[in-house]
Amino acid sequence: MEFLTGVKEQETLELTTLLAGDYEGQSVKLNGAVHTIRDMGEVAFVILRKREGLIQCVFEEGVTKFELKDLKEAATVEVEGVVAKEDRAPNGIEIRLREIRILSEPSAPMPLAISKWKLNTSLEAKLNNRAVSLRNVRERAKFKIQEGLVRGFREFLYEEGFTEIHTPKIGAKGAEGGANLFRFEYFHRPAVLEQSPQFYKQMMVGVFDRVFETAPVFRAEKHNTKRHLNEYTSLDFEMGYIDGFEDIMAMETGFLQYAMKLLEKDYAKELKMLGVTLPNVEKIPVVRFDEAKKMVSEKYDRRIKNPYDLEPEEEHLIGTLFKEEYDADFVFVTHYPSKKRPFYAMDDPQDTTFTLSFDLLFRGLEITTGGQRIHDYRMLTEKIAARGMTEEGMEDYLSAFKYGMPPHGGLGIGLERLTMQLIGEDNVRETTLFPRDLSRLEP
Amino acid sequence: MEFLTGVKEQETLELTTLLAGDYEGQSVKLNGAVHTIRDMGEVAFVILRKREGLIQCVFEEGVTKFELKDLKEAATVEVEGVVAKEDRAPNGIEIRLREIRILSEPSAPMPLAISKWKLNTSLEAKLNNRAVSLRNVRERAKFKIQEGLVRGFREFLYEEGFTEIHTPKIGAKGAEGGANLFRFEYFHRPAVLEQSPQFYKQMMVGVFDRVFETAPVFRAEKHNTKRHLNEYTSLDFEMGYIDGFEDIMAMETGFLQYAMKLLEKDYAKELKMLGVTLPNVEKIPVVRFDEAKKMVSEKYDRRIKNPYDLEPEEEHLIGTLFKEEYDADFVFVTHYPSKKRPFYAMDDPQDTTFTLSFDLLFRGLEITTGGQRIHDYRMLTEKIAARGMTEEGMEDYLSAFKYGMPPHGGLGIGLERLTMQLIGEDNVRETTLFPRDLSRLEP
Repeated sequence: MEFLTGVKEQETLELTTLLAGDYEGQSVKLNGAVHTIRDMGEVAFVILRKREGLIQCVFEEGVTKFELKDLKEAATVEVEGVVAKEDRAPNGIEIRLREIRILSEPSAPMPLAISKWKLNTSLEAKLNNRAVSLRNVRERAKFKIQEGLVRGFREFLYEEGFTEIHTPKIGAKGAEGGANLFRFEYFHRPAVLEQSPQFYKQMMVGVFDRVFETAPVFRAEKHNTKRHLNEYTSLDFEMGYIDGFEDIMAMETGFLQYAMKLLEKDYAKELKMLGVTLPNVEKIPVVRFDEAKKMVSEKYDRRIKNPYDLEPEEEHLIGTLFKEEYDADFVFVTHYPSKKRPFYAMDDPQDTTFTLSFDLLFRGLEITTGGQRIHDYRMLTEKIAARGMTEEGMEDYLSAFKYGMPPHGGLGIGLERLTMQLIGEDNVRETTLFPRDLSRLEP
Repeated sequence: MEFLTGVKEQETLELTTLLAGDYEGQSVKLNGAVHTIRDMGEVAFVILRKREGLIQCVFEEGVTKFELKDLKEAATVEVEGVVAKEDRAPNGIEIRLREIRILSEPSAPMPLAISKWKLNTSLEAKLNNRAVSLRNVRERAKFKIQEGLVRGFREFLYEEGFTEIHTPKIGAKGAEGGANLFRFEYFHRPAVLEQSPQFYKQMMVGVFDRVFETAPVFRAEKHNTKRHLNEYTSLDFEMGYIDGFEDIMAMETGFLQYAMKLLEKDYAKELKMLGVTLPNVEKIPVVRFDEAKKMVSEKYDRRIKNPYDLEPEEEHLIGTLFKEEYDADFVFVTHYPSKKRPFYAMDDPQDTTFTLSFDLLFRGLEITTGGQRIHDYRMLTEKIAARGMTEEGMEDYLSAFKYGMPPHGGLGIGLERLTMQLIGEDNVRETTLFPRDLSRLEP
C-alpha cells in the first residue's frame, strides 16, 4: 500500500529561499511564468514571475540549451541555471540559464501589457480581463495587502478571545429588512440573501460572549458610485459584557494597530511597490455626529442641509478637517440620530433622538458602522412596535433576548473600502477581486 | 478632543487569567451568565458561564450583599468575591461572593435545560432553539473545534505560500453548471449562487500561483440525508506548478497534520469535553477507485453494481476495511471515472476513462474532492466540445487558459462534514451553526 506522509519536498527553489540563502555560483532550478522577454541579440533577458516577485534570467546563445524563438511570453517554465550577482536586476541577482523546460504555453498573445510597471489601461478593461490584468505585479499587490488586513482582523480577535463563526447567507428575512434584499425561491419558499450577519452574530454573543465573521454580504442597492458594491466582504465582530459603546471603538482601534504592524512586518514589499504610507493609528479622535457637522459647517462655511444624516461631501470634509487640525487619518463619529439607525441600535438614555453608535471614517470615507445594541427583550420589542415594524420572522432572533443576553455591541467593516482607502485608490472596484455592481455580473 | 488609543483594560478577570495566576484569598471581579443556581438553604452555588468555561460562585446568606431570590438563571451579572480552593468545583476553585450586580435579565424561563452535561433533547429541538441550545457547554465546544480546523487550514496555507482570496458568490453561471443552482434576478439579469469557487480560484492560480478561500457555497440539491446541506462552508485551495495530482493530496495531508497539532495545543479542553480522540494522520493510504471497489467487493462479498460511482455504503465499507487492515481513519481514493467528474478534470493520459483526481474519505465519508485540472486551452475547449457543452458564459474562465496557465490542481473540503467526522456525530446538522436544508430556512 502506498501512503502519503505530508507536503512533498520540491526540487525547485522558491524566490524567498533563493534570496535568503547564499546561492551565488551555484546551479539552481526554478519555475515560473514568462513575464516578459527582452531580446538583445546574443543575449536575452527572460523575466520570470513567481508569487513572491520577479526574477531575471539570462538567455545566452549557445550556453542555454534552447531556442529563444520557442519561448513565448506567458508560457510557464522550469529553468535551470547558475546564480550570479547583478545589481541592475530585481533583487540584485540573476540566473544564467542552462536549460528551459516548457510546462505550458498560451494560445494567444496577451491582450494587456501586464509587464509594464503601471498597467496603462482603464478600470473597465482591467475588470473585463481580470484573470490577466492581475498578473501585473502592482495590481496583484493590492490583494496581498487586502489579505494582510483580513489576517490581522482574525489574528487580533483570536488573541482577544473571540470565536470565529460561520452564519448562513440564505435566510428567510434580512437583518435590517427593507427593499435592499436580493430575493429568490428556496425549495418553494421565499428566501433572501443576507445583507449582514447582524442577527446571527448577536445571537451568538449569548453563546460565545465574543464572536467574529469574515464573509460576503449582499446588498441589492441601486447605487452606482465609486464606493458601493452589491456584494462585499464584511469583517464583523460582536462582543458582550461591554461597559459602553466606547469598548467597541477601542477594540477596533486595537485591530487597526495590530493590522498596521502586521502589514509593516509581512507586507513591506507590497506597500513599497504601491507607495503606501501606513496611517497613524496610535490615537484616533472621537467626535459627536452633531458636533462634527457643526465643525465642518463653521470651518468650510457650509450650510447644514440635513441635520439627521452625513452627506458624502460632509464625511469628506470631516476627514479633511481632522487631518488638518489633528493630523488624523481616522475619525470616530458618534451618536448618530436614532431615526437613521436600525431598530436594534441602543438609544442614548440622555437623549433618545441619538444612539450609542458610531461610524469610523478613514480619510473622509465611512469604512465601519457599529455601536451598542439593545440587549433587553422588552426594550427591543417596544422599539419594534414603536417603529411600526412586525416581529414576524424575527421570533428566533428575539428568543435570544427573551432568554437573556449580556450588554453588547459590535461593528462591520467593509474590507474592500478599507483596502481602497489604505492604498489610496479612488474606486472600490480597484480593490475588489471580482466586483459585483449594477452592471457587472462577470467575470 | 477625546482620543481612543487601543483596547480598554478590563476591571473584570477572564477565566484564563484567573486560572493562570495565584489569586487565592484575593478579592476579584468577574462577569458572566448565570448558568445554573443550586440553592442549598444557607448557601447556594451559582455557576457562571463564561466563554472559556464554567466557574463556581458561592452565595452565603448574610455574607453576600444580595437577595438570592432576585437572581435568575440566564441573567448576566458582574460579581465580586474572594477566590478559594475547592477541589469539587470545576477547575478546582470557587468564588465566595460578596456582591452581585445584575447586568441583564431574561424575560422568560429557559425552554431547554442547557446546564445539563448532555442536552437531553432532539436535534430538531436543538436547531429550533439554536440561540439557547448552543449555550450548553458541550454543544458550543463543537464549534470551537470547527474554528480550530478553519484556523489550521489558513495558518498552514499561509506558511506554504498561498494567498487568501475572496471570490464572488453571485455569478452569471455556476462552476459545474447543471440543475443544482439557486437562481434569482440580479437587476433584471438572471444570476446564480455559486456552487463552488472553482472557476475563480483556477483563474487566480495564474496570478498568485497558490490560492485558498474559506467561504460559503450553495447547492440547490434535493438531497434529504444526514450528510447533505444546501449551504456549507467550503475550504478550497488551488495550487500551480504541480508535478502531479499527488502534490495536492500531499498538501492536504500536511494540512491535516497541522490542524491536528493545533487542536491538541489550543483546543484540548473542548476535545476532552467531547471525548474526541484525534485520528492518526502521519500517513494516509492511497488506493485507486477501481481497486478499492474490488477490495470491498471481495472482503465483504458484495457485488459491484455500478463500476462508475461509489455508493455511500461502499464508501463506508472502504473506511471499515482500511481501519481494520491499516488502522487508517483517512483514505485517499484516486482515479475516479472521467464521466463522473466535471469537464475541467484532467484525464489520466494512460487511460482517459479515468481522471487524475481523488476523494478523501474520513471514517468512511467523503470530506474532500480534488484533483489535477486541465491547464491547456485547446485540451479544455476540446473536452467542452466533446461533452456537448457550450463555451457560452465561460469566456472569462477560458481566457485565463488562453493566456497561459501553469499545471495545477486543488481541492474543496466540506468544513461541517470534517467537523462531524472528527467529533463522531452522525448528522452534519450537529456541526452546523445554522443549517440550511430542504425544510430548514430558519433560524
